[in-house]
Amino acid sequence: MCLQQLMLNGFKYIFYSMSRYEKGKKVLEDIQQRPVEEIFKELEDVAPDLSRFVVEFPYSEIYTRDEVDLKTRELCTVAAITVLGAIPQLKDHINAALNVGNSPAEIVEIIMQMSAYCGFPKAINGIVAAKEVFAERDLLPVRD
Amino acid sequence: MCLQQLMLNGFKYIFYSMSRYEKGKKVLEDIQQRPVEEIFKELEDVAPDLSRFVVEFPYSEIYTRDEVDLKTRELCTVAAITVLGAIPQLKDHINAALNVGNSPAEIVEIIMQMSAYCGFPKAINGIVAAKEVFAERDLLPVRD
Amino acid sequence: MCLQQLMLNGFKYIFYSMSRYEKGKKVLEDIQQRPVEEIFKELEDVAPDLSRFVVEFPYSEIYTRDEVDLKTRELCTVAAITVLGAIPQLKDHINAALNVGNSPAEIVEIIMQMSAYCGFPKAINGIVAAKEVFAERDLLPVRD
Amino acid sequence: MCLQQLMLNGFKYIFYSMSRYEKGKKVLEDIQQRPVEEIFKELEDVAPDLSRFVVEFPYSEIYTRDEVDLKTRELCTVAAITVLGAIPQLKDHINAALNVGNSPAEIVEIIMQMSAYCGFPKAINGIVAAKEVFAERDLLPVRD
Amino acid sequence: MCLQQLMLNGFKYIFYSMSRYEKGKKVLEDIQQRPVEEIFKELEDVAPDLSRFVVEFPYSEIYTRDEVDLKTRELCTVAAITVLGAIPQLKDHINAALNVGNSPAEIVEIIMQMSAYCGFPKAINGIVAAKEVFAERDLLPVRD
Amino acid sequence: MCLQQLMLNGFKYIFYSMSRYEKGKKVLEDIQQRPVEEIFKELEDVAPDLSRFVVEFPYSEIYTRDEVDLKTRELCTVAAITVLGAIPQLKDHINAALNVGNSPAEIVEIIMQMSAYCGFPKAINGIVAAKEVFAERDLLPVRD
Repeated sequence: MCLQQLMLNGFKYIFYSMSRYEKGKKVLEDIQQRPVEEIFKELEDVAPDLSRFVVEFPYSEIYTRDEVDLKTRELCTVAAITVLGAIPQLKDHINAALNVGNSPAEIVEIIMQMSAYCGFPKAINGIVAAKEVFAERDLLPVRD
Repeated sequence: MCLQQLMLNGFKYIFYSMSRYEKGKKVLEDIQQRPVEEIFKELEDVAPDLSRFVVEFPYSEIYTRDEVDLKTRELCTVAAITVLGAIPQLKDHINAALNVGNSPAEIVEIIMQMSAYCGFPKAINGIVAAKEVFAERDLLPVRD
Repeated sequence: MCLQQLMLNGFKYIFYSMSRYEKGKKVLEDIQQRPVEEIFKELEDVAPDLSRFVVEFPYSEIYTRDEVDLKTRELCTVAAITVLGAIPQLKDHINAALNVGNSPAEIVEIIMQMSAYCGFPKAINGIVAAKEVFAERDLLPVRD
Repeated sequence: MCLQQLMLNGFKYIFYSMSRYEKGKKVLEDIQQRPVEEIFKELEDVAPDLSRFVVEFPYSEIYTRDEVDLKTRELCTVAAITVLGAIPQLKDHINAALNVGNSPAEIVEIIMQMSAYCGFPKAINGIVAAKEVFAERDLLPVRD
Repeated sequence: MCLQQLMLNGFKYIFYSMSRYEKGKKVLEDIQQRPVEEIFKELEDVAPDLSRFVVEFPYSEIYTRDEVDLKTRELCTVAAITVLGAIPQLKDHINAALNVGNSPAEIVEIIMQMSAYCGFPKAINGIVAAKEVFAERDLLPVRD
Repeated sequence: MCLQQLMLNGFKYIFYSMSRYEKGKKVLEDIQQRPVEEIFKELEDVAPDLSRFVVEFPYSEIYTRDEVDLKTRELCTVAAITVLGAIPQLKDHINAALNVGNSPAEIVEIIMQMSAYCGFPKAINGIVAAKEVFAERDLLPVRD
C-alpha cells in the first residue's frame, strides 16, 4: 500500500517525459513484481505485439489513473476474471492483488461474493486458483 | 428413484427439527454418495464458508423442494453446466445425475441436445467429461 | 403429456417415410403449437435457411429421439437458455415447456435452481421472462 | 462511508438476535435505500422464494461479513455484472454502489477498466447503463 | 475493396506523421462512415476516455495493420460479437462490414455459421440484428 | 486455396448424388486432413451421433455453401471460438484454418483483434493455443 501510494506519486511527475510503453511497463512490473519479458514469455515468437498492447493500453492508460487505487482495481479485476473463468489470468491477478496490498482473506471474500453473480461452479474454480497461488506463496491456511 | 422418493418423504417429517446445514448436508451426501468433507476438500484451508453456502443454499433450500424430482433437477443442472463450460463441476453433477437415477444414455442425450443451444464445442467438451465419469464407473460403452 | 406420448408413438411409424424437414416441422409445430412459418417469421427475407437448419437439426434429429421425453427435454432447454441469457428464445421455450406438459411451478422451480449455477442476475431475468409468458397465458399467480 | 461504518458496527451487536431474513433485509434495504417489497416487485406472483434466497444468501451471509467494506464490495459487483452483461441488475448495483459511498467517477473508472477483461462492447453497454442511472439522479456530467 | 486498398495504402505514408488518435479516428470514420463524435455520442458526459481508448487501441493499433484486410476483419468481428451477444455493437459492426465491402449475403452466411459454435438462440438474435440494419439501408430481401 | 476452389467445384456436380453424411465427411476430412474416425475418436462409445450431427449439419449444410470461401470461414470460426474460450476446439480450427490457406500471421492477427471484443485474457489463451499448434507444425517463430 505504501509502495503503491509511492508509485502513483512517482508516476505523476515522471510520466510526462515517459513513452506510453515505458509508463505501462513500470506499472505492470511494479504490480506483478517480475520483468515484462517473463510475464509475456509465452507470447514471444507468436504475438509480441499483443504483449505490447497489454502494456500500452490497460497498464499505461487505465491502471495509472488515480480515480481508483491499485488495491481496489486489482480486487475488481479478480472479481471480473472469476466471472470470465480464465484461470491462468486469474492466478496472475490474484498474485497482483496480493502484491498491491490485498490480504488473502480479502481476495477469498470477493471470489466467494461472486457465487451470487456467476454461480457456484465458477466461484469454486476461482477459489481453487487462489489456493494454488496462496500455496506457492506459503499463505495457507487463510485466516480471517 | 426409489431412494429419492424415500429420501424426500424422509425429509418431510425430519426437516422441521433439522438445521439448514444438516438438511442440506443430508441431501448433498445422498446425491453425491460421499461425505461432505470429501466433496469440498479443496476449499478447506481457503474458503470453508463457501462450502457451507453450497450446503445451506442450493442443497438445503432448492434441491429439497418437491416441485421437481431430483432426477430431473440433476439433468437440468447437467444441461446448465454444459452451457457454462465448468468441467470439474460438470463431472460432479454427471456423477450426481447417475446417483439419482438417470442412465448414461439419458445424460448423453441431454448433453447432445445442448449443441443446439450452446454450440458443438461446449457440447463435445461435455461429452468428453461424461465419458471420463462413465469410464471411472465402468459404464462404457453407452447403449441406448 | 398424453399428446406427447401419442406424438412420439405416432412418429415412430410415420417417420420412415417422411423427409427430415417434414419430421422436424411436425415436432416443432406440435411443441410450439403454431405453424413453422409464424415461428420463423423474423428470419424471412434474411436467412430462411437458418430456420430450415433449426427444423432439420434439433427438431428432426434430437427432439424425436426417445431416450428422454419432451417434457424433460424442454425443462433442460429452459435451464440452458436461462444460463445463456437469450430472452426471446427463453420465452419461446417457456411456452414450449408449458405445451408439452410442464406446470408453471415446475418451470419456475428450474429457473430458480439456476441461480446456483449462473448467479442471481440471470435467474431473475429468467423469472421475469417466465412472468411475461404466464401473464399472456393467464397463468398468474403461480401456485405450488 | 460514515453510514456504512456505522451500519456494520450496528450489525455486529444486533445480528445475534436477528433471523437470517431480517439481517439480509436490513442490509439490502440500507444498500438499495428502498423497501425489499419494491426491489423484488417483479418476482411477486411468480417466484417470491427467489427474492427470499437473495435476501437470505448474499445479503445476509456475504455482504454482512467485515473482511471487505460495502464500498469495495459494490464496486466489485459492478465489475462482475459488467462482464456478465445483465443490464437491469447492473443498474441496480450502480445505484447501490453510489448509495454506499462510491462517486460516479469511481464507478465509471471500474467499468472502463473492464474493457481490458471483457472487451469494449460490454464495457460500453456498462457505461450506457451507468449514464442512465446518473441521469436519473442528476449526476451528469461526470467529473474526475 | 477498392476504397479499403486505397485507404490502407494511404495510411502507410501518412501514418508516420499522425498521432495515434488521428490515425485511429481516420480508420474508424472510414469504416463507420460517420464522424467519431456521432459514433460515441452516448459516452459523452460520462466516459469520453473510453471512446478515446477505442479509437487509440483497436482502430489505431489493430485495424491499421495489413496482415488481414478490413473486409475479412469486420466479418470476423461480426462472428465474434454474435457469440458475445452484444446487440448494439453487433449492429454497428454489421454496418461496418457492409461499408468495407461485404455483401448482405456474406454477413448472413457468417452469422448462420455461428449457430454451430454458439447455438441457435444467439445466431437467430444475430440475424434479427442484421435484418434491422439491412432494412434501414434498404437491402432486403437478401439474395444469394 | 487452389485445393479449396477445386473442392467446391468438385462438390457442385458430385453432391446431388451424395448423402448428407458423405458430403459433410468429404468437406470435414478435406479441411482437417485426417479421417473422420480419428477426428471424433473421443466421442466413440459415448455419443457417436454427436459426431454424425457435426458432419451432417455444419460441414454438410454450411461449409459447403459458396457465399463465403473456406479460408474466410475458418478465420471467422477461429475468432468465434477464441471468444467462446473452448481450447481443444480452438486448436482443431487453427489447424483447419492453416489447412485451407491461412498463414500463421493471419491467424495470430485475428486472435489479437479479438482482445478488443472479448478482453485480453481470452485473446492471450487463444494465442497460447495457436503457439501449440504452430509448434507441432514447425511454424515458429511467426513472421509478418
